[in-house]
Amino acid sequence: MSLKINGLDDLDLQILEILLKDSRTPFLEIARQCHVSGGTIHVRVKKMEDMDIIKGTKLIIDNSKIGFDVCGFIGIYLDKAKSFNNSLDELKQIKEIVEIHYTTGDYSIFVKVLCKNITDLQNLLMNKIQSVDGVQRTDTIISLFQPVDRSIDIDVLDE
Amino acid sequence: MSLKINGLDDLDLQILEILLKDSRTPFLEIARQCHVSGGTIHVRVKKMEDMDIIKGTKLIIDNSKIGFDVCGFIGIYLDKAKSFNNSLDELKQIKEIVEIHYTTGDYSIFVKVLCKNITDLQNLLMNKIQSVDGVQRTDTIISLFQPVDRSIDIDVLDE
Amino acid sequence: MSLKINGLDDLDLQILEILLKDSRTPFLEIARQCHVSGGTIHVRVKKMEDMDIIKGTKLIIDNSKIGFDVCGFIGIYLDKAKSFNNSLDELKQIKEIVEIHYTTGDYSIFVKVLCKNITDLQNLLMNKIQSVDGVQRTDTIISLFQPVDRSIDIDVLDE
Amino acid sequence: MSLKINGLDDLDLQILEILLKDSRTPFLEIARQCHVSGGTIHVRVKKMEDMDIIKGTKLIIDNSKIGFDVCGFIGIYLDKAKSFNNSLDELKQIKEIVEIHYTTGDYSIFVKVLCKNITDLQNLLMNKIQSVDGVQRTDTIISLFQPVDRSIDIDVLDE
Amino acid sequence: MSLKINGLDDLDLQILEILLKDSRTPFLEIARQCHVSGGTIHVRVKKMEDMDIIKGTKLIIDNSKIGFDVCGFIGIYLDKAKSFNNSLDELKQIKEIVEIHYTTGDYSIFVKVLCKNITDLQNLLMNKIQSVDGVQRTDTIISLFQPVDRSIDIDVLDE
Amino acid sequence: MSLKINGLDDLDLQILEILLKDSRTPFLEIARQCHVSGGTIHVRVKKMEDMDIIKGTKLIIDNSKIGFDVCGFIGIYLDKAKSFNNSLDELKQIKEIVEIHYTTGDYSIFVKVLCKNITDLQNLLMNKIQSVDGVQRTDTIISLFQPVDRSIDIDVLDE
Amino acid sequence: MSLKINGLDDLDLQILEILLKDSRTPFLEIARQCHVSGGTIHVRVKKMEDMDIIKGTKLIIDNSKIGFDVCGFIGIYLDKAKSFNNSLDELKQIKEIVEIHYTTGDYSIFVKVLCKNITDLQNLLMNKIQSVDGVQRTDTIISLFQPVDRSIDIDVLDE
Amino acid sequence: MSLKINGLDDLDLQILEILLKDSRTPFLEIARQCHVSGGTIHVRVKKMEDMDIIKGTKLIIDNSKIGFDVCGFIGIYLDKAKSFNNSLDELKQIKEIVEIHYTTGDYSIFVKVLCKNITDLQNLLMNKIQSVDGVQRTDTIISLFQPVDRSIDIDVLDE
Repeated sequence: MSLKINGLDDLDLQILEILLKDSRTPFLEIARQCHVSGGTIHVRVKKMEDMDIIKGTKLIIDNSKIGFDVCGFIGIYLDKAKSFNNSLDELKQIKEIVEIHYTTGDYSIFVKVLCKNITDLQNLLMNKIQSVDGVQRTDTIISLFQPVDRSIDIDVLDE
Repeated sequence: MSLKINGLDDLDLQILEILLKDSRTPFLEIARQCHVSGGTIHVRVKKMEDMDIIKGTKLIIDNSKIGFDVCGFIGIYLDKAKSFNNSLDELKQIKEIVEIHYTTGDYSIFVKVLCKNITDLQNLLMNKIQSVDGVQRTDTIISLFQPVDRSIDIDVLDE
Repeated sequence: MSLKINGLDDLDLQILEILLKDSRTPFLEIARQCHVSGGTIHVRVKKMEDMDIIKGTKLIIDNSKIGFDVCGFIGIYLDKAKSFNNSLDELKQIKEIVEIHYTTGDYSIFVKVLCKNITDLQNLLMNKIQSVDGVQRTDTIISLFQPVDRSIDIDVLDE
Repeated sequence: MSLKINGLDDLDLQILEILLKDSRTPFLEIARQCHVSGGTIHVRVKKMEDMDIIKGTKLIIDNSKIGFDVCGFIGIYLDKAKSFNNSLDELKQIKEIVEIHYTTGDYSIFVKVLCKNITDLQNLLMNKIQSVDGVQRTDTIISLFQPVDRSIDIDVLDE
Repeated sequence: MSLKINGLDDLDLQILEILLKDSRTPFLEIARQCHVSGGTIHVRVKKMEDMDIIKGTKLIIDNSKIGFDVCGFIGIYLDKAKSFNNSLDELKQIKEIVEIHYTTGDYSIFVKVLCKNITDLQNLLMNKIQSVDGVQRTDTIISLFQPVDRSIDIDVLDE
Repeated sequence: MSLKINGLDDLDLQILEILLKDSRTPFLEIARQCHVSGGTIHVRVKKMEDMDIIKGTKLIIDNSKIGFDVCGFIGIYLDKAKSFNNSLDELKQIKEIVEIHYTTGDYSIFVKVLCKNITDLQNLLMNKIQSVDGVQRTDTIISLFQPVDRSIDIDVLDE
Repeated sequence: MSLKINGLDDLDLQILEILLKDSRTPFLEIARQCHVSGGTIHVRVKKMEDMDIIKGTKLIIDNSKIGFDVCGFIGIYLDKAKSFNNSLDELKQIKEIVEIHYTTGDYSIFVKVLCKNITDLQNLLMNKIQSVDGVQRTDTIISLFQPVDRSIDIDVLDE
Repeated sequence: MSLKINGLDDLDLQILEILLKDSRTPFLEIARQCHVSGGTIHVRVKKMEDMDIIKGTKLIIDNSKIGFDVCGFIGIYLDKAKSFNNSLDELKQIKEIVEIHYTTGDYSIFVKVLCKNITDLQNLLMNKIQSVDGVQRTDTIISLFQPVDRSIDIDVLDE
């Protein structure tokens, strides 16, 4: 692996790759795989956290098994383009929204949401998202089935 | 917290909540916060892994800092609805695809992708996704800016 | 009420109006309200059944309470316009489809469906509707909430 | 039939099934088919009415034979998402509207209408629906032909 | 020909058919073809004019040969549905508009226009149609080639 | 009026203007208005017919009064662009089609149709237009009301 | 070459053709190819500049090599059609916009932009174009790859 | 100006800036403005040509004045995504196409065309572009008016 992005060297990328596959891998195990000391791993991970490359960790759970049956994507149209910043601030407060994107295409804002069920989604749309100032209308699609949900494979950096 | 989903009790949900915030929290620390023994935490986490509720862990990294500048969503139209299973199998082999959804609306398949840059996205679309048998055309939007990327807050289960 | 459609007189329309409000109204009660004998009601209802004006009766149930949580509308695009008759025959066999329309606009066929839940809808779309020969793709919207579901008010014929 | 939804047992579902096929079936006939007494049928139907599972009955008539030639679906766009509740209240007063849905996709409101003829539909759109406060524009499709209109087959609950 | 619409008899329809093919046919020639007197033709045409069935005559000219090179269709979206009547009044004053329709689908108003050239169309759109109060935006298509332009063939009434 | 298009002089255009307003105006009346002899009018009209500027005449009738209640516009999508010529030949045979346009935008072909009623339109779409080889699908809008239907005003040539 | 447009003769068009291929061709070389004197070329080029036929010259550079990686097209929707002139004036001030078009279809304004990168495009959209008064929303597509960028071949005038 | 892209220094960028404004500026004039010798300019321009940064020059002409009245943008949909390379090869042979883009959004290919007039555009679409193997349909918009057509201002690199 020879790309040098942001001053990261091969060891950094190797550590990332291991952690991307399982973020709970003990540092000693990472050290063993990389043929360096555990302390080195600590230093490198700390460096990547300081550089905000590693921003935290995330448990992957089966959302439907803990009661989040409905995953959806909502394209939001604002009444005028200038409303963006204010609407964004309000949208950030809505807990069911797990991603907010500013995109090409014709949506003003594109979000990903997780809800308990259809009634919950109705409530989210009608009483939360559509109550945000500046929201003119929304375009919602629901994910009925999600066969793939994974981290990016850092190997594609080598292609 | 009183919802009982899939036989999970309050302790299970409390453990999930802590791990969703930081999947690297040591079990002893979780135990301390929950006023139970570390062994109990082990048992409960193991149970939720066996039930496939906890499916693994995921490092949150700043994709652009390691060289993935372009995040996009691609709606895929198949030439006929019956091509779904075959096309899905081929799409799963494409590493840049991190999510695959089967959705309402009029896309046959909806995917989320991560690429190094615009040239990479062109390559992904032209030489990978559009080379999949059965793919008639695609509709791509690019995320220019993503102010929110977070796990679902398990607290909304109580609302 | 003075419109004379298909040779129906005011008494016929009055009977229809009462039955449209509650199809279980006993004929004697209808007779009382219309100031005619029960036998007359029988004759008139029989006549309207023979004319195929009255086609049967329908219980209105709260679909979600017996387990049909998801009501949706699906616009179906065929691969070519000529596939219509064959596709229609197959669609008629699908029990979850409660209405089939041939419409203006750009859908080839427009249907209303009732499903138990989201997983069921996915199964209906993927394994039933999209398996019908000639179906190219579908455009699905889900009803999240239905505040009005009623028979036509026969009074508007007078306006 | 073994699903237990809302505490309904097999007898309840069997009664529903018979009534869904013909809502005028006498209770004694239902009793005969179910091998229970007529009184039991009364009790069960009463219970399901009290639980709001059975909400009433509906005569199925050939709308075109009594003068309703035009059935249409209208997607309504509101000027802003917040207008929903007020617009809904006004729309409920319009007799030609037989269904109102709050849906995914990009319509603010989706309704089904029945009209006497094209001139009537023009009047409904121009002088009634488009006169409702908050309605920005509408998207109308007309059903030219409806080969299927039926109740849900309760048997699909067993699949 | 046996349809009796609006009290028209076969002779009336036969006269209409001849005039639809060539509105300049002399009445005596029509009389000869119909085996009646010229006076009868006068009476019948006068009757159909009084009934507003015959509304006038129209020369068919090759618009491009007298300098109208551009024929287009414009879908007009109003800012709110209620603006219809006022906007319609202003649109009627614009001479390049030869047809105005109130339609299904999602346009508020749909018009057909004839212009001398592209610059003229730009002027029509920018300075005339888009200057009408209530017009939010327009969707224009240009006819590049029109292989068919004819009157309805009255024979289809017999099918 | 001073434009000289295709060698037409002011007298030609004045004659056209009169005939566009009423194509049955007797030549002597046109001669009187133009201060020339009736023979001159004959010569000029003949010349414009020979140049294919005047292509015939057309009776303007109230289509709904003779039984054509439904006027619609249909955008036709072909299965492939190359099918155009063959499909056009078949479409020309369909009597209900009164205009055929090849347009900008995304329709392959755009037509105007006149039908007796909704059932007729269904028949036209399903059994005629959609039976044409190469037609993939159609997008239909119906004119519910047409407040303006007129010839182009030749005066706009002077603007 | 025999078309006479705007009084241009064959020599003028021949000069244009040479300059369109390489705008830096010395006048003496052009003269040699056209078998006339260099002075004649000067006179003709000067005439075409005075007639505003030749409006200047343009270096063709590989935009991505000097740091403009992103070329995009943006359809702009205004809040009302009347805002056109004011919005146009503001858009002209935005340096990243290299073309502005007023088009058929449903965009109010259609522009071509060049940006350094995705972040730049986000800034352009969010802080420049969407800050223009009257802009309601935008529809952006990005050119991922541009295999052809050339001047019009003047030879097509002869076809 | 301090950006160092592709090893270009300030002098290179200054030369580009001058040539982008007027590609016919004599090298001596450029040298004078940059306070270097004419030879230096030659060396630098040669280097940038060798690096393919400068790809040639282009005369800016008023297309409508030499007879190209119609500028349009055409979104092309292919019958299947895999047809891209073959279709691209054929499209490159069509002289009226001056730009070809592979874009996000839902077009397979997006092109810019220049035509003499509407009849020419019809011919281009019907007989050239739509005759290309693999082209399913097209979506055309015409530029009615183009108030801005300019090179990118290299100054934005400094922002």
